[in-house]
Formats: sequence, structure tokens, C-alpha cells
Amino acid sequence: MWRALCEHAIGAVVAAATLSLGWAAPTPPPSPTPELYSPQTVSELKKLEHAALTSDYGWRQVAHLANNIGPRLSGSAQAQKAVEYVAVELKALGLEVQLEKVMVPHWVRGDETASLVQFPGQAPGTTQKVVLTALGGSVATPPDGLTAEVAVVRDFDELKSLGKEKIGGRIVVFNYAFDRRMAEQGWGGEAYGEAVVYRSDAPSAAARLGAVAVLIRSVGNAAYRLPHTGLTTYAADAPKIPAAALAEEDADLIAALVPQGAVRLHLVLTPKELPDAVSYNVIADLKGSEHPEQVVIVSGHLDSWDLGTGAIDDGAGVAVAMEAAHLVRQLGLRPRRTIRVIAWMNEENGLRGGETYAAEHASDIGNQFAAIETDGGAGHPLGIYIAGQPGLRTILQPIANVLRDSGAGLLDFRDEVGADIDPLAKLGVPNFSPIQDSRFYFNYHHTAADTLDKIDRHELAENAAINAVLSYGLANLEQPLPQ
Amino acid sequence: MWRALCEHAIGAVVAAATLSLGWAAPTPPPSPTPELYSPQTVSELKKLEHAALTSDYGWRQVAHLANNIGPRLSGSAQAQKAVEYVAVELKALGLEVQLEKVMVPHWVRGDETASLVQFPGQAPGTTQKVVLTALGGSVATPPDGLTAEVAVVRDFDELKSLGKEKIGGRIVVFNYAFDRRMAEQGWGGEAYGEAVVYRSDAPSAAARLGAVAVLIRSVGNAAYRLPHTGLTTYAADAPKIPAAALAEEDADLIAALVPQGAVRLHLVLTPKELPDAVSYNVIADLKGSEHPEQVVIVSGHLDSWDLGTGAIDDGAGVAVAMEAAHLVRQLGLRPRRTIRVIAWMNEENGLRGGETYAAEHASDIGNQFAAIETDGGAGHPLGIYIAGQPGLRTILQPIANVLRDSGAGLLDFRDEVGADIDPLAKLGVPNFSPIQDSRFYFNYHHTAADTLDKIDRHELAENAAINAVLSYGLANLEQPLPQ
Repeated sequence: MWRALCEHAIGAVVAAATLSLGWAAPTPPPSPTPELYSPQTVSELKKLEHAALTSDYGWRQVAHLANNIGPRLSGSAQAQKAVEYVAVELKALGLEVQLEKVMVPHWVRGDETASLVQFPGQAPGTTQKVVLTALGGSVATPPDGLTAEVAVVRDFDELKSLGKEKIGGRIVVFNYAFDRRMAEQGWGGEAYGEAVVYRSDAPSAAARLGAVAVLIRSVGNAAYRLPHTGLTTYAADAPKIPAAALAEEDADLIAALVPQGAVRLHLVLTPKELPDAVSYNVIADLKGSEHPEQVVIVSGHLDSWDLGTGAIDDGAGVAVAMEAAHLVRQLGLRPRRTIRVIAWMNEENGLRGGETYAAEHASDIGNQFAAIETDGGAGHPLGIYIAGQPGLRTILQPIANVLRDSGAGLLDFRDEVGADIDPLAKLGVPNFSPIQDSRFYFNYHHTAADTLDKIDRHELAENAAINAVLSYGLANLEQPLPQ
Repeated sequence: MWRALCEHAIGAVVAAATLSLGWAAPTPPPSPTPELYSPQTVSELKKLEHAALTSDYGWRQVAHLANNIGPRLSGSAQAQKAVEYVAVELKALGLEVQLEKVMVPHWVRGDETASLVQFPGQAPGTTQKVVLTALGGSVATPPDGLTAEVAVVRDFDELKSLGKEKIGGRIVVFNYAFDRRMAEQGWGGEAYGEAVVYRSDAPSAAARLGAVAVLIRSVGNAAYRLPHTGLTTYAADAPKIPAAALAEEDADLIAALVPQGAVRLHLVLTPKELPDAVSYNVIADLKGSEHPEQVVIVSGHLDSWDLGTGAIDDGAGVAVAMEAAHLVRQLGLRPRRTIRVIAWMNEENGLRGGETYAAEHASDIGNQFAAIETDGGAGHPLGIYIAGQPGLRTILQPIANVLRDSGAGLLDFRDEVGADIDPLAKLGVPNFSPIQDSRFYFNYHHTAADTLDKIDRHELAENAAINAVLSYGLANLEQPLPQ
């Protein structure tokens, strides 16, 4: 495998060089491959990788964010504390720090309880508890809740087939299962993509048919009576109805009971949507020596959902971006372009941070050289995802060759590799992210179990190695990137 | 392996036969092995095994107990409903059913919330949620809770070393970890045994030194922010203080924060201990044709903890015991001794059912031929645990030979194999249980995630096969059991 990859890489470099001539020479030997990275840069990249694998700076950062600050939902006091903390830490590294103001949604979770109050076989005077959590952005039920009969559907097609008669007045359960086998084979993100459409679109789809509330089966893996939150969205043409995610077991329970007879559920959700709040992207520059105006962004998002402590989503991403700058400083290196660490605000329920940055830099987009984001947890990385031109593979191959030492030598393309940097991708900026182990990520994603213990220190360091090597490599690339 | 086991078995039978003669014959050939099971019985055992593996009766029983009735804590309306349901079902099989009255504790869980109200790094105006659940039998905090500084210890030795000065007035966290690697290798019960002593004894140990509450690290495996309840006990010589189990992550969090500075926790637990309630063991006899007075008990316990729906603990055990009787009836078989199905009441927080039965049958103990209990979930069984005389191995070997077809041919000894039948063991009655897969059982045990989806239908059927073959085999054994 190693040889195959290596030969492929050499072939790609030659092909790129040939193409760059703009014509096909009939006989002369191919011109020398243009140098992508100087020998000194390659040597420094190897030093950065080795230093990353033995540093605990990133671990200490994510430990502080998760344990000492805790959940960091946009608009919360913890999110503000995290902004201040990261700014201070990056200043301490000698970076130039600025806070970029972002107005963020300020949604606050309230009570969230539910029980089956009527079901086949029910013991007299009893109800059965149902475990759920409000979806981000959900409207509230009345303070004392609402009670209605339950209808269960698997998907939008089944919803439509039932129609207004069987959906009207009901609490609709969407029992679409996350594809566990897909995740087990390493395609966790794809499994998530298939199921998450119900989290976003089900409430309005059901409301158009008269439903009074929607409960989705949690978009995630593992069955530990643990509901997964996440953002829902309301369409302009539909009533806003309360929406929550059921633990997998509770979706199974309701789906088993409904065919046996009438099931009625009592639901209480009391979230509040407060006025938009002031928050910030934390932006910290390690200035380039030759092209300080050109920036290579290395980033994660600082906000998190409110159920867990945001360790894997995405304290880890912020920590490995901070570690990249820390390692460059620790080794006394000076990048030729600016390495810009960004801790984005509001990825989870608005994307206001990423969108604000892209809008504010649209007129200067040519200086946004590249953007890296880590937002898939802290699992062992296999390499680098690229969103951009095919020629980027050739440019990144020497970096991949360095990272192969820690098992991270793959390069692959995706349409989108990071939510906060995608607005930049749409403006032509090449985007990159680590290819992270996604087999277990969706066991914990957006749940109360997203906590520090889910991070393996060595695997976190492997992600830091990618961030350091890739950001420093791009900052020292001897040519422009294809955009 | 098959051959080795088989030779061992034959050797054991011959050895037993030789021993039973009471003297060593110098030259004559060994006398014929006494027949343990008639050829017809062996043929019927094979039919029972095959029928068990294709029947869904047991599955339907546990599905009804878990999904339709739900949690069945002693004294609850659901426990009463379960008594009535199982009695009706066993009558429908043609069994003679009686309800044996048992007075049971009636403890009711209340609110249970906790938060860190002071900790290093805390954002202004915030607290951090701590996930926990009251231990069964715990006394309550004041209605609006109590707040105190936290002390963390690993074990009783560390508690003593801190002494009254550092424990007095504190909430003490016992952070003794369940041994995950032990469980992964199939020794889940042993891992549980090592850690559960803190659940039972920690509250009084800490109270003697002036602690105001105790929180233990949950006695279980898997880390999904899921606390494990279970019974605690108060010693007569110590104040009764509130006691709860922390989710593993929350124990880790507190243990990480305390060395950094003062940590204060606010704890609200409002359980109630109501007067003892009337409940019942369900006892159902499939009468023996030759020795109806001699009974072979096949059993599980009907009560469960209140967080989940008691599917693996122990709806499964009741279901496979019921399945044993169902299969004997379905095949039109008549046992020579009575097969007695028992659904025990109050295993979890009092053991009143098992103790009542043993006390009421002490004068007739000679007719309690054998007792089987399944209370280790519904995982694939490898064979049979025996609590009793060494000679029981020889008696059970032909049964193990039948069960080897479904991978359940092992025989092994333990001091105790079932909590409800152990009082009978202490009176000399041989006890048996399936050797069940314990690798994952303690991921779910006593948690909200003990739900029907944790049961694999085929593995449940394998446990039913053991119950049917073992109970019918013992009921038709051609000789008495060594007691």
C-alpha cells in the first residue's frame, strides 16, 4: 500500500508539472518538478510532527475547556468565559489576538420531560417515563405540557401517506434509524448525513399536516438511553411546533406499543429563545515573515451544545489548533505566511461565526490562503480531507508523506470538510480537515456524554500533528494554491 | 476440545460409579455405570433444546414485562401488575398457580439533582450539572437539598487516612472504578463483586467520620453519562446519610477538579421509604407423574429497579423460566418430578421473596430437589454454574452433553449462583444457573438503559434451552442428587 501511494504521488507530481507547461512536448524530458516545500521546511515539518506527539499542551487546553468551563452554548456565560480564556492563552503564546464580534442566537434549554400516559398493558395509575431532549431552537409546549395520541412514521414518505387525518392533532414520532453498520465501517459522517434531515426538517413537515409536536429518534449511535440534541429549523410556511429527540430505546418502545393500541404521551418542553447576544470569534495571528497578509487558518469551534461539556465537539478542535501555534513557537519557527488560529463561535446553532468572518473578508479573499478546521472529534486521524481543486492533492502529497509516520498519510476529497470554513470554500479558499475516526464519534455527539474521558491523549496529539504540519507546511509552500 | 471434555466426562462417570461402591475391587471389571437419565429422557432433552431455539414464547413474555408493564420495583403498581400477568400466563399453560405472600420494602425514588456550585475556573454565575441517581434505600436530603465541600477518596483505606478532620461536614465521593478489563475478559460478575462493596458500605463508613452525604462512582461499565442504582445498606452504628451513584464521567470530573481547588456540590435527593407492602412470589407447578412432592425450581425475579424497564434484570430470567414450562407442555411431556416455575419478588432491595420461600419450606426441605435461577441477563450461555457437592458434575454431564449443541456445554462451580435460591442452597438444595456472557451485562445493569433492545432473541432462546433441558432433566433424573 505504501508503495502504491508513493508511486501515485510521484505520478501526480509529474502530471501536474506537465500540465503546468500548457502544451505537450513531443520528445524532451519532463522539466524538473517545481519545488513545493524547501528541504528546510520538510525538515521542520518532521520536527513539528514529532513534537506534537509528545506535547500535552492541547490536552491541557481541552481539559480546561471541558472540565473547568463546561458546556459552552452560544450566548451563555460559559461561552463568554471560553472566549476570554482562549484569548488569554493565545496571547501568552505571543500571538496577536483580536476578538471578532458576532451576534449569536441565545436559546436556553428548560425543563424537558415526557411520559406515556396511556398504552396497552399499562398498570393502573402508572405512566411510563420517556427520555428525550429538546432540539436546539425548539419552541416550548405550554408550561404544563401537552398531551396527545402518538403516530409513528419511519420517514417523510410514510408521513405523507398517513396524511392530515392520521397526523392532525398527533405527536408524530419519526423513527428513522442511524445506520449503525455504516458507522462501524468508518462512514459515521455519511450515516449522520442520511438521518439528520429528520432533525432539521421533520417538525415543519409534520406541522403542515396538523401535528402538535414532533419527536425524532436521536441521530446517533449507541443505545444507552441517551438522547442527542442538535439544531432544528422551522420553515416559514409551517406552524412552529415543539420538537425533541428521543433516546433510541424510547423510540423503539413507542414503535413497539403503537401497533398494539392507542398510545398517548404527555410532553413538557420549556426552552426560551432570548434576544441575540454579543459574542466573538477569537482570532490569533502568528505573523508570517514574508507574506504576513496571507493567512493560513487553523481552527475549531469554541461553542458547544449544552448537554455535555463539549470535549469532542469541539473543545478538541480548538485545542489542536492552539497546539499548532504552540508547537511552532516552541520550536522557534517563523512561518513565511501568517498562521491564524481561530476559535469559531456559534457553529452549533447558527454558524454566525464562520459566516461573519467570510463576509468580513470577502473583499480581501485573495489573502485567505487556506483554511483548516478540526470538527470530527479527537479520534485517530488517517490523513487529510480536501475540499477544493484536484491539483491540491499534488500540493499536499509531501505533507502527507511526513504525516504517514503517524498513520495519517491519506488524502481524500469531500465537498465540505468543515462547517465554519465552508463559507470561505464557497469563496474559493481551499479547505482542509483531518480524516478522523468516525466509528464512535456519533455515540457521543451532541449528548451529555460528550466529556473529556472520550478523548484519548495520544490520538488528540495525532490530530495536533496534522494541524501543525499542515498549517506550517501551507504557510511555507513555495507557490500559490490552486483556487 | 470436544474430545477432551467428552473423555473427561466418561472418566468422571466411571470414577463416581467406582466410588459409589464404597470399596476398591482388586481385579473385577468396574460395574456398569448407573443410569442417570433414561434413553427416552435423553431423547426428550434433545427435543426440548431444539424446540427452545425456535420458540418465541419467552421473547414475547419479556417484551410484555418490559414494554407494556415497565419498571417493577417492589411495592409498585407495576410489580403488582406483573404478578397478576405472570400468574395468568402460567395458568394458561395449565400449571397450578399459587401466590406466596411476601411483605416487601416500598422505597420510592424522588427528585435527584446535583450541581457543582463552586469549582476552579468556573464562569461567573454558572454551575455545572452532575448526573447521579439515588441508591436504593437512601434517605433524603432536606427538600431544598444540601451544599457542602467535596472530598474524593478511592477506597476505605484512603477514607480512614483522611480522618474526621477532612471528612467531617463533607460530601464524600468514592471513586473506585469497576474493572473494565476484567469484564471484557468475561469476568463481569467478579468485577462487580470487587466494586459493589462501596455501594453497600460506603455511606456508613463515611458517616462515622462525619460526612453529610456519599456519592459513589457507579458500579458498572460503559461511559454514557448513565448512573447505576442498586441497594445500599446502613449500619446500625452510623448516622444515615443520603447516598447516590455518580455517572462515571461525573466521578472523573470531580476527581479532576478537587486537586485544583475547592469544589462545592449542591445535592437534592427526595426518596421516600413507605411502609412495607404486600406482594407475592408467583409459584406455578407442572406436576410430576411419579414424585409430585419433589420439586425442581426454575426461576427468575419479577421485580426490577425503577430506572429502566427490567428487561435483562430480570424480565429475561422470568421469561426463560416460563419458557421451560411452556416447552414441556408444547411437546406434550410429563416430568416425573414437579417442575416449579417461580417468579421471585424483591430480589433487588430485600430478597424477601427468596427468604420467605426458604423459610416456609424449611420443614419440607427434602422435597426441594433442586433450584435453578437465571439472573445474569440474556447473553449467550456457555454452560451451567453449579453450587453444591462436587458429585453434581457427574450428574449434570449428560445434560451438558445435550446443551453442547448450542455451545452451552461447560460445567463450573461457584459458591453462589442465584440470590433468590441461595437461601435454599444454605439448606442443602443444589443450585444451578446458566453461565451467561457477562462482558456487556454491567454496561446496562441497574440503569435506565436496561431495556428490551438489549436482549438478542436467539441468545434469550439459548438460555431458555438451558432452563428447559436442565429442569426437565433433573425432574427425570433416575437417582437422588447429592446434597
